[in-house]
Amino acid sequence: MSRADRVEALLADAELDALLVTNLENVRYLTGYTGTNGVCVIGPDLRAFFTDFRYVAQAERQVHGFDRALGKQDLLGDAAGRLSGRVGIEDYDLSVRRHERLRGLVGEGVELVPAGRCVERVRAVKEPEELDRVRAAAALADELFRGVVERGLIGRSEREIAFELETEMRRRGAAPSFPAIIAGGPNGALPHAEPGEDPIARDTLVVFDWGVELDGYCSDCTRTLATGSIPDDLAEVYELVRATQVATLDEVRPGAAGAAVDGFARERIAAGGHGERFGHGLGHGVGIVVHEGPTLSKASEDTLVAGNVVTVEPGVYVPDAFGVRIEDLVVVADDGPEILSGFPKGLTEVG
Amino acid sequence: MSRADRVEALLADAELDALLVTNLENVRYLTGYTGTNGVCVIGPDLRAFFTDFRYVAQAERQVHGFDRALGKQDLLGDAAGRLSGRVGIEDYDLSVRRHERLRGLVGEGVELVPAGRCVERVRAVKEPEELDRVRAAAALADELFRGVVERGLIGRSEREIAFELETEMRRRGAAPSFPAIIAGGPNGALPHAEPGEDPIARDTLVVFDWGVELDGYCSDCTRTLATGSIPDDLAEVYELVRATQVATLDEVRPGAAGAAVDGFARERIAAGGHGERFGHGLGHGVGIVVHEGPTLSKASEDTLVAGNVVTVEPGVYVPDAFGVRIEDLVVVADDGPEILSGFPKGLTEVG
Repeated sequence: MSRADRVEALLADAELDALLVTNLENVRYLTGYTGTNGVCVIGPDLRAFFTDFRYVAQAERQVHGFDRALGKQDLLGDAAGRLSGRVGIEDYDLSVRRHERLRGLVGEGVELVPAGRCVERVRAVKEPEELDRVRAAAALADELFRGVVERGLIGRSEREIAFELETEMRRRGAAPSFPAIIAGGPNGALPHAEPGEDPIARDTLVVFDWGVELDGYCSDCTRTLATGSIPDDLAEVYELVRATQVATLDEVRPGAAGAAVDGFARERIAAGGHGERFGHGLGHGVGIVVHEGPTLSKASEDTLVAGNVVTVEPGVYVPDAFGVRIEDLVVVADDGPEILSGFPKGLTEVG
Repeated sequence: MSRADRVEALLADAELDALLVTNLENVRYLTGYTGTNGVCVIGPDLRAFFTDFRYVAQAERQVHGFDRALGKQDLLGDAAGRLSGRVGIEDYDLSVRRHERLRGLVGEGVELVPAGRCVERVRAVKEPEELDRVRAAAALADELFRGVVERGLIGRSEREIAFELETEMRRRGAAPSFPAIIAGGPNGALPHAEPGEDPIARDTLVVFDWGVELDGYCSDCTRTLATGSIPDDLAEVYELVRATQVATLDEVRPGAAGAAVDGFARERIAAGGHGERFGHGLGHGVGIVVHEGPTLSKASEDTLVAGNVVTVEPGVYVPDAFGVRIEDLVVVADDGPEILSGFPKGLTEVG
């Protein structure tokens, strides 16, 4: 079944006659189109794609299996002409204004219904070829990180190292799947720190969180390295996070609830005395973007299935002091988790 | 007046008691916050900013002039507690789902009203310090482009040249304000072409559209270069676009309607016999992002004022053959347009 076929199969359950896909990532996933203005409509015997003047030639090359048509401006007027009955909209994506406009454009008999993340549910289960691309992205990320470690850290700025790492990604035909986080010492306490200009100190911890987008698919990985010998309290936190991360990997299996896997890790971090210092979810899906479904968190309502690709990334952040996060990219599979992040997780000392 | 004060001044006209700012670019513009989850509320005696756990330390450094508070998840519950009366929402930004959620969170007396692009109206008029940053970005873009021209084009791939240009931006502490377009020969007929692997040919036209983001502000510029001698029909189109672009610059002045400036250029392109081959708007505002207000297009309802920064970028695209686009970045000023793009616009031959 094509991706669009799998989306169509979900429509019946939701009693929808069609789905209007406005989220550009979803349009890309379903049609192959990589431009910045495109929508598609999916229903029984209905595969319609619209883009504007600027992207017509590109769409001819990229979009197959859909009727392609030239549309105007935001394309809603064009898409509206293909809608009838109960039509799902991506309500988490469509703006209030575009929704109002669409309501004025559709015919009398059209009912617009919030459809949530239909396409994302399909996206979350990767095809074999998609898994290969994620594996390739993760392998490249590993390789480039080994280069960073070999060139050394102490005395160099976070920004300089990030620049080298990201330039090397681009030289290899890839790109960062998000801006790399390189956070030494107290900066490591900021889960989303931006690389700074100060030189990385000796005898501290440095958090690296980086990913590669290669061939349309993303990777995501975090390692925390030591620049020499570190105090016992840091080493204890490192070991707590490491042991938690490793133990949690075994919980990543088809049928596991995202909330339960998160809870498994959270209990261990709390038992180690740092429950208040793990202030983010355990993990998230990764695919054509670096944050997608399913989610591993307290609030998650997702259940893992084979073919999901998720991160497992517990962390402990001690404000103004240091942070530790360890993250693997994992394929959910019937015969046990496949770990795509190869760099060792024992505390690695780097000069 | 601070930026927030200028937004507040617009609220009275719209009979709003407060504005809920959810668009992240607007949050950044108003508060200085550069993270990925933040909202703010502006009203008389009301300057409230919310972010989540991950960004608290960052917000302490970046956000001033607002009450800062720690919020949860999408922050709407926290913001809702500060809303009363008629509250403007950014309806072009807020999703249908978040809007529904917000409606359930606000108190009885709160009316949510589509407020359009209030903050963007303020953003469109740059402060002197903002103009300096745009000038610096444009100057760097010019300088780096001269390097590209010096290194030569023929036989090198579009992608290789784009990689070098963008790497140099990053080495200089800047970044691309959008992925550079380098489109030789027939690729130039795609206004938004992606750089390809084929070597650039001799005796053709190559469209370069590139911009730099430096210190939080963007530039945008397009030049079309010749790799040797080109056929007369290409040279004629080049001259039509060049003459149109230069003539149109004089129309960029306070009080001019965006639609009129666009029409001025469009008439000239049409008079040259290529009206159907200029399929995009004449220009757009540039600032903290590379596309903002005001807009120069057929549908524009904007009127230019001093302090606007806009592009002027007519183009002619001949499918499967070639394209020409010439774009300057221009500050709208009382004493005539200030052109920030320095590279010559006479047809430049490059080896």
